[in-house]
Amino acid sequence: MERTFVAGVDIGGQTTKIGIVDARGNVLDQTTIRSDTYKDVNQYINELADAVKKVARQTNTLEKLRGVGVGAPNGNYYTGTIDNAVNITWAGNSVIPFTKLLSEKLNIPVALTNDANAAAVGEMTYGAAKGMKNFIMITLGTGVGSGIVINGEVLYGHDGFAGELGHTTAVRYNGRKCNCGKSGCLETYTSAIGMARTAREWLETGSEPSLLRQIDGEISSRDIYEAALKGDALALRIFDYTGRKLGESFADFVAFSAPEAIILFGGLARSGDLILKPVRESMNENLLPIWKNKVKILFSMLRESDAAILGASALAWEL
Amino acid sequence: MERTFVAGVDIGGQTTKIGIVDARGNVLDQTTIRSDTYKDVNQYINELADAVKKVARQTNTLEKLRGVGVGAPNGNYYTGTIDNAVNITWAGNSVIPFTKLLSEKLNIPVALTNDANAAAVGEMTYGAAKGMKNFIMITLGTGVGSGIVINGEVLYGHDGFAGELGHTTAVRYNGRKCNCGKSGCLETYTSAIGMARTAREWLETGSEPSLLRQIDGEISSRDIYEAALKGDALALRIFDYTGRKLGESFADFVAFSAPEAIILFGGLARSGDLILKPVRESMNENLLPIWKNKVKILFSMLRESDAAILGASALAWEL
Repeated sequence: MERTFVAGVDIGGQTTKIGIVDARGNVLDQTTIRSDTYKDVNQYINELADAVKKVARQTNTLEKLRGVGVGAPNGNYYTGTIDNAVNITWAGNSVIPFTKLLSEKLNIPVALTNDANAAAVGEMTYGAAKGMKNFIMITLGTGVGSGIVINGEVLYGHDGFAGELGHTTAVRYNGRKCNCGKSGCLETYTSAIGMARTAREWLETGSEPSLLRQIDGEISSRDIYEAALKGDALALRIFDYTGRKLGESFADFVAFSAPEAIILFGGLARSGDLILKPVRESMNENLLPIWKNKVKILFSMLRESDAAILGASALAWEL
Repeated sequence: MERTFVAGVDIGGQTTKIGIVDARGNVLDQTTIRSDTYKDVNQYINELADAVKKVARQTNTLEKLRGVGVGAPNGNYYTGTIDNAVNITWAGNSVIPFTKLLSEKLNIPVALTNDANAAAVGEMTYGAAKGMKNFIMITLGTGVGSGIVINGEVLYGHDGFAGELGHTTAVRYNGRKCNCGKSGCLETYTSAIGMARTAREWLETGSEPSLLRQIDGEISSRDIYEAALKGDALALRIFDYTGRKLGESFADFVAFSAPEAIILFGGLARSGDLILKPVRESMNENLLPIWKNKVKILFSMLRESDAAILGASALAWEL
């Protein structure tokens, strides 16, 4: 039987999304399981394999599945392992032979990479990077991730961990402390959490009026976005600051790999010109003359609800 | 006749080196012409073609030449052109169809790249990177160049200009003005000229005694090296500062491409532990835990006198 479908699995800290995808990038059906109710990886793998089979049966594709593509935090493409994924309850400080375990359960091949690389593959296969051979995907969520594509292939590097651009240094001295142990990482300024941190710092050290002062509890990046839409000056400055930090770093990324485009993915990428304008301006200010106004900044074109599954599934076509 | 020899051409601002190389990386013979006595590129090409033929005849390889590999400032591998090489008298602010011109004169294929990429190819073919698939070559000379190798191939990027790591930002705010028009470029701190600039600044703003104060005229990086060897505290601090700037930037490069090694080439790379120690320390301080103490810093193993020719010639084997 011709194997013309793949499964895409996106593992997040709380939930895991599973979908069946055809060669055109249509998600036929999808389902969700919890990621965080298992202490033991084997229990999780059993549950995951059952969910893949269930949704494949529902779509009449069980016998036509070519393979499974998985995106997971700290997923290593070379080794098929999930290494020290401290935010996953069944992973923690260990090395999980993930593709081996899942592939033994399902009797089809499994490919694994980290979530940002999966998004890059998805974008290249179905989205804004279709036809591009050299681009960088920046995922702006709770953290900042990246997937780098060189000559049409994801850059994995010597050890499979290439593309940690969220942990390049945006502020060299007295930079913000990052969860990774370093200081000044791009992520601490430009993730959703980083933006909220900027808001908190500025509200504490300044006294200008702002809609953000009326928020009870923790300020979220969504609050900042909504305030900015209403013209709140402080919220607008937070977007400008965040965008400039990204743009400055992007100029260095361009000097590295000379991409055709940098593609923004995730929550912050939905804020349109609020983020795009300062990113573009500061990137171009910091580029060598040969690249000024030549490198595109684009938003992901993957449908948000399917993006993670599509990205992961695209990996499985190479199996 | 079997074509088992190649010519390597290294074009510098003042001189051009030409050599004939066998498959094992032996330079059979070499010669030199001036680069800077021609206003017109055709005159220069005539002279260069004659020099290649002459040294090929001397080594009895004229009929056995497979091709010519050329390393030149702003040489573009994709287009075979030298673009806006302002330090070359016959190039200047124009686009020179270099491979076309030389290949028409010699009737053999010609490949072109910039000098740092040529050095990377040379190192991979004959030097410290033999057998490596992922490494970064950093050339420390008058400027700072780089050649990035990914999966065994030089990274050229979308437009052929990838790998301008000397122009990534080492100091974000109030950085030194660079010739490229930007500020804070790594090159302004860690090239030979950058080191001399550090010396000048520190001597002017401080008053501590130093052997460097006794030097008539411009201080060179060689002067700093010699003073450091004699234990001069200021000179030692300049090496430490320069090395730390390099190491901090290297950590960001590792986060990008996860190389097996970073290889230092050029004048400063001959200063041994004086530079190696601060580079290694500051790189490791700034790396994510997964990479700490895992990425090698090596010195080029190409014989200095042949390096440029070997690097360029290695390109020609792909023709």
